[in-house]
Amino acid sequence: MRVVVVGTGTIGTAVAEVLREARHEVVTVSRTGGDLRADVTDRASLAALFGRVGEFDAVASAAGDVFPAPLATSTDEQWEQSLGSKGRGQIDLVRSALPHIADGGSFTLVSGVLGDEVNAAMTIGATVNGMVEGFVRAAATELPRGIRINCVSPAVLTESRAFHPYFPGFVPVPARDVALAYLRAISNPYNGRILRLHRVS
Amino acid sequence: MRVVVVGTGTIGTAVAEVLREARHEVVTVSRTGGDLRADVTDRASLAALFGRVGEFDAVASAAGDVFPAPLATSTDEQWEQSLGSKGRGQIDLVRSALPHIADGGSFTLVSGVLGDEVNAAMTIGATVNGMVEGFVRAAATELPRGIRINCVSPAVLTESRAFHPYFPGFVPVPARDVALAYLRAISNPYNGRILRLHRVS
Repeated sequence: MRVVVVGTGTIGTAVAEVLREARHEVVTVSRTGGDLRADVTDRASLAALFGRVGEFDAVASAAGDVFPAPLATSTDEQWEQSLGSKGRGQIDLVRSALPHIADGGSFTLVSGVLGDEVNAAMTIGATVNGMVEGFVRAAATELPRGIRINCVSPAVLTESRAFHPYFPGFVPVPARDVALAYLRAISNPYNGRILRLHRVS
Repeated sequence: MRVVVVGTGTIGTAVAEVLREARHEVVTVSRTGGDLRADVTDRASLAALFGRVGEFDAVASAAGDVFPAPLATSTDEQWEQSLGSKGRGQIDLVRSALPHIADGGSFTLVSGVLGDEVNAAMTIGATVNGMVEGFVRAAATELPRGIRINCVSPAVLTESRAFHPYFPGFVPVPARDVALAYLRAISNPYNGRILRLHRVS
C-alpha cells in the first residue's frame, strides 16, 4: 500500500518506520519537513497536498498539538490552536483527501487518553479528543467506496519524558506500540474503531 | 435560584417555562429576543452579557445550530458554523460566565442523540456532540468553587416535525421532558453527567 503519514513527531516517525518494515510505501508530510509540506490548519495547503501526492491507499494522521492549560486560565488562542489543529485540522485532512483516496482505502486519526481519563489540566485535550472520536465514529457510517476510518488513542508516550509529570501514575506507552495500532487499523477491516493504548484501571 | 437561559428556541422556551414553574427566576438570552441579547459565537457579546446580567446561580444553554449535511458534500461554512455555535459557542459561554457565576452554581449544556446513534447525514452533528460532551466531562473535574457542569442530550423533539424525516424510527421526545432534565441537572448534585433523552435500543 501507499500510505500518506501526516506529522513527523514521535508518533509519525514511528508510524512511518513500522509501515516501511511491513513493506508499505510511505510518503511523509509535515509543516516543516518530510517528503511533502502541508499544514492541516491551512485548507489551501491540504488541497495542494492531495493534488500533487499521486495515488494513495491510506492516510495516517499524527498531526496537531494540544495545550495542557487549566480551564480557568486557558486563553482564546490556546483553544483556537488546539481545536484548529488536532480537531478541525484532522477533519479537514479527511475531507481534503476523500476525493483522492483509493477505493477501499483507510484513514487513521489520533485522539488521546484525556477524556477517558483525567489529569489536572485536561479540558482542552478532552474536548479535542471528544471531537475527533465523535467525527471518526460518525464518518465511519458515511464514507463511500468502501473507505474506512479509525482512531488511535495513545496514553502519554514513553519517549515524551517532559510530559510525564502531567500524567502521574499513568503507564506510558512506547511510540512503537502506538505505531503498531496504526498498522492494525490500516491492515484489517476495522471501521469506526477507537484503538486505545491505555493501561489504566 | 436565578438562572440564565441561553437560546429561545423550542428547548430554551420549555426550559424557561419549567424553571419558572419550579419558582426559579429566569433571565432569557438570545441573538434576537429574550430579556438580554447575546450571540455565543461572539466572545465580546458574551463578555458584555455577563457584565450586565447581575448575580446568577446557573446557566442553562440550549444554544447553537448544526447542519445536517452529508459528510462528502459538507462545506467549510457548514462545519465552521456548527462547530462555532453549538461547539465552541457553548464552551465560550462557560468560560465567559465562570468568573461571574455564584459559588456552587451550575452549567447545563446541550448535545444530542447523534454520535450515540446514527442517521444518514450525521457527521457534523456527531462531531459537535462529541466535542461538547468531552468538554463537559473534563470541565466537571476542573471547575472551582463547587461549580458543577452537566449536559442534556435530546433525541429529535416531538415539536420539531420538519426534522422527523431525518430520524426514521427514532422515538421523538417532547421538549418538556428535555426541559425537566435541565431542571434535574440544575437542582441535584450532578456533575459531569450526560443526561440522555433517547429511547432507542
